[in-house]
Amino acid sequence: MIDSPRNPRVKRFRSLAQRKYRRQEGCFPLEGLHLVEEALATEARLEEAFTCPERLRSDRAREAHRALQGSGVPCHELTERAFRQLSDTENPQGLAAVARLPEMGLADLALPSPALVLVACAIGDPGNLGTMIRTAAAAGSAAVVCTSGSADVFGPKAARATQGAIFRVAVVQDVAEDELVRWARSQSLSLVAAASEAEEAYFHGVYAERTALLVGNETQGVPPALLDAADRRVRIPMADGVESLNAAIAAAVLMFEVARRRHAPDD
Amino acid sequence: MIDSPRNPRVKRFRSLAQRKYRRQEGCFPLEGLHLVEEALATEARLEEAFTCPERLRSDRAREAHRALQGSGVPCHELTERAFRQLSDTENPQGLAAVARLPEMGLADLALPSPALVLVACAIGDPGNLGTMIRTAAAAGSAAVVCTSGSADVFGPKAARATQGAIFRVAVVQDVAEDELVRWARSQSLSLVAAASEAEEAYFHGVYAERTALLVGNETQGVPPALLDAADRRVRIPMADGVESLNAAIAAAVLMFEVARRRHAPDD
Repeated sequence: MIDSPRNPRVKRFRSLAQRKYRRQEGCFPLEGLHLVEEALATEARLEEAFTCPERLRSDRAREAHRALQGSGVPCHELTERAFRQLSDTENPQGLAAVARLPEMGLADLALPSPALVLVACAIGDPGNLGTMIRTAAAAGSAAVVCTSGSADVFGPKAARATQGAIFRVAVVQDVAEDELVRWARSQSLSLVAAASEAEEAYFHGVYAERTALLVGNETQGVPPALLDAADRRVRIPMADGVESLNAAIAAAVLMFEVARRRHAPDD
Repeated sequence: MIDSPRNPRVKRFRSLAQRKYRRQEGCFPLEGLHLVEEALATEARLEEAFTCPERLRSDRAREAHRALQGSGVPCHELTERAFRQLSDTENPQGLAAVARLPEMGLADLALPSPALVLVACAIGDPGNLGTMIRTAAAAGSAAVVCTSGSADVFGPKAARATQGAIFRVAVVQDVAEDELVRWARSQSLSLVAAASEAEEAYFHGVYAERTALLVGNETQGVPPALLDAADRRVRIPMADGVESLNAAIAAAVLMFEVARRRHAPDD
């Protein structure tokens, strides 16, 4: 039973809240029931896990604890005091783990047909980016590509906002704009960019069988080079006087429009 | 020039971060360029304003400052030190104000035809609730009704997430479930509830000219009594293995579906 907040494993887990240590060690920290459950349910590679028996307060949490123990992953028990030091949250759920960073490049993506890809253009807010990934998984996207300047998807705040979708959808990070365009051409992906000044409303848009949707951050939108490279530009019509939508909301409206067309092509 | 962090106006502004003081005083605090701009552009009633000349770092911020000064609202200048004490953020933009709480009840809502209303059922996360209000304004909703148990829309975090939409869409808070149902009937509003176990996909749903969309929080969903009272229940189809959507995302998908039908009825 680990009791000391200065235990080296606890300190290392904490250090993984910083991007530089995640890169150095090739792994990232998971915390909370939902993320641990999703890691167990998918193909995440876990290095080690931490539990705090005192804080496992639901049958579901205790079930996840048993599953961790049965998974062959080294599982360390912590006292309340030590777990509080490890945790990033005020009311920890008593479950945490260290997962291998999936080292994914564009070349590793094998797209199905039809395919939907979300391109997050310099989305700096980790909560927003995490929500975009969660929504992409729900809307059936094959992958999320984050251009340089985006927050790190594997940081604690973004990972939490994905609610585990990080294990269900392939994510490629730090992609340069020209690299993205070359890859999209090589994959016969049609690039459709969200742009508030576009003429075409998104619900009149044409979405090819292989489509990548580009959504920018709220202050700058999709960068000019990518707007130029896009095959189509669409806008989301808004009520008078409203300037913009939250980036995760704009991504959701577009992705679910593509999903709707695929589910109900005649509507 | 106010320099003391213990100035009574500064202390009072800070106290308005708490719901009990907002209720007691009948007003709420605004901070940041965007919220102040929206308050000036709409019919918000401002009691007083605070600026920090040193922190007005864009032409747009200086323009808002001049507009505040020309608006007849008492405008206090603060030093950097005092403004930092007033501010809720790490990098304050040098603009803040105190606005009257709009005291709105269901009886005050005058709905147009067609009308779209969003009902936020016990949405406890202030950021999510604020994003829902921002999205409701963009999708052309006439009002947002929050049932008891929702976060306070006029708290700093929720108000910031609305990006000023709080001044563009009518919000009624603390509405009991039975009160909501009686009001909807009296207004001939069709109640459509989001429910993950519903048979009908939202894109096959029928949305009456006067529709209220009910969206629940992520753990409990729309409460049973409101599911029973709803005229229709719809689900958002999701990819295999995905459990749920963020509540603000679910609300956005449904509201923009209704907006899409109104914009492009034949698609």
